[in-house]
Amino acid sequence: MEILDGKKISNQIKEEITVEVAQMKERGEKVPHLAAVLVGNDGASLTYVGSKVRSCKKIGFESTLIHLPEETTEEDLLKQVHQLNNDPAIDGYIVQLPLPKHIDEEKVLMAVDPDKDVDGFHPTNFGKMALDMETFISATPFGIMELLKRYNVDTEGKHTVVIGRSHIVGRPISILMSQKGKPGNSTVTLAHSRTQNLKELTLQADIVISALGVPRFLKADMVKEGVVIIDVGITRVADDTKEKGYYITGDVDFDNVSKKASFITPVPGGVGPMTIAMLLKNTLLARERHNN
Amino acid sequence: MEILDGKKISNQIKEEITVEVAQMKERGEKVPHLAAVLVGNDGASLTYVGSKVRSCKKIGFESTLIHLPEETTEEDLLKQVHQLNNDPAIDGYIVQLPLPKHIDEEKVLMAVDPDKDVDGFHPTNFGKMALDMETFISATPFGIMELLKRYNVDTEGKHTVVIGRSHIVGRPISILMSQKGKPGNSTVTLAHSRTQNLKELTLQADIVISALGVPRFLKADMVKEGVVIIDVGITRVADDTKEKGYYITGDVDFDNVSKKASFITPVPGGVGPMTIAMLLKNTLLARERHNN
Repeated sequence: MEILDGKKISNQIKEEITVEVAQMKERGEKVPHLAAVLVGNDGASLTYVGSKVRSCKKIGFESTLIHLPEETTEEDLLKQVHQLNNDPAIDGYIVQLPLPKHIDEEKVLMAVDPDKDVDGFHPTNFGKMALDMETFISATPFGIMELLKRYNVDTEGKHTVVIGRSHIVGRPISILMSQKGKPGNSTVTLAHSRTQNLKELTLQADIVISALGVPRFLKADMVKEGVVIIDVGITRVADDTKEKGYYITGDVDFDNVSKKASFITPVPGGVGPMTIAMLLKNTLLARERHNN
Repeated sequence: MEILDGKKISNQIKEEITVEVAQMKERGEKVPHLAAVLVGNDGASLTYVGSKVRSCKKIGFESTLIHLPEETTEEDLLKQVHQLNNDPAIDGYIVQLPLPKHIDEEKVLMAVDPDKDVDGFHPTNFGKMALDMETFISATPFGIMELLKRYNVDTEGKHTVVIGRSHIVGRPISILMSQKGKPGNSTVTLAHSRTQNLKELTLQADIVISALGVPRFLKADMVKEGVVIIDVGITRVADDTKEKGYYITGDVDFDNVSKKASFITPVPGGVGPMTIAMLLKNTLLARERHNN
């Protein structure tokens, strides 16, 4: 059994980007500039955005945090989005979700210039991804593909079962895994809440990608010997014995499933750390595409 | 066994549209106007486009055929596309594929205004489809969904195996079948040229959608009793005994598979006739959306 070490690989990727940015600077080129728009004071969102901004600084990107009050109107947020679209200094930006309830998220995401949409959430970018065109692949599925690639996990002709059909993980990873390419060329089954025979399916799977959000849902008796496990679930479970009052766990019963697996991502330290790395990668790509 | 009669259903749909168009006229509204751009003189393309234009006339749409010579430059074709984008008289239009080799198809399809892209080939429309947003679904997958709907075929929680990952059939139908909705909510496996255990998969399938283009590939011993069969394959097989010198056949060994099936589409007369009907439906939707 080998651990797919997202922490290690994400650090590698950040180091690679740091080198590229240093070279850009040496050549006198503009370095990548990521902006993040945060509306309101949701605790988790503050943490995520803060972490993204800190990562930018570490690797030499410029970054801008636009922190708007909770009561910002949809109109004002759209104005901000248009301003970012038209600002040549900004290579890419994200609008941190969720937005306050009085704002139509779809409307805001649709207003983001696809060429600056480093989250890859705009339908144009999603469609390009599905049609094998150059695009921004959203960070979580992009991170999974990169992990599989760097560990040279064989996916060709393998049967991959994806659990969960969310727009940001299950759906895109099911598409990417079945496309031509390496990793890719997998036979993909997309399972979800209406699936009736999930265990029957996971028992056939060479690769299971779980993006369900149910702690320790996937048990050892649901998978076969040698399976590859990608655990995208991240759930906080209340626990008074922990300093923070909770611990983080994935969709997979790691202790038992890992005994049968050939490769497995831990939680934390698997898919999670890859996400910020791939957002930075997308911002670098945005900068490079604007140069060309 | 019940035949999923695409010819009958497509005629029903055309009749429904005819009634709607007549009501539009009565209300003094502009009727839908479809334009088709054809470059060169490919025989099959001439037939398809001709048939689309005739269908428009029959149901009361306005239609325009723009027939450009084979040697049209990419630049001139793009000019034509921009003209159609900006012409308020045109509700929707198609650029008939394939285009001559000196023209970059992707560039041309990207230039089509997504709001007039009744073929649903633009990445923005594909992405919207995949993200459950209002869009134009391309005609073949849209036609399959409509057939399943009108025959009230139960898809919820069923295992659908799609064979073929093309951008215009396999990929989109695999997405649509697994989305929330009715039809939909199916557990979908997407199989393709790299799939190693196809027969094992099709034997588990409650629904098989084959979009492979290999005559009579799917045999009776590959499916289970009661299976629903959607045959998207349309292949011309040379045959001197036929007046045209060929006959049309699908991916499915119809005579034998139909004995085990609960529902099955014939070829011809199944998915094929639905395609033009759904193109017309999309043009009607385009007109209605422009009105709103």
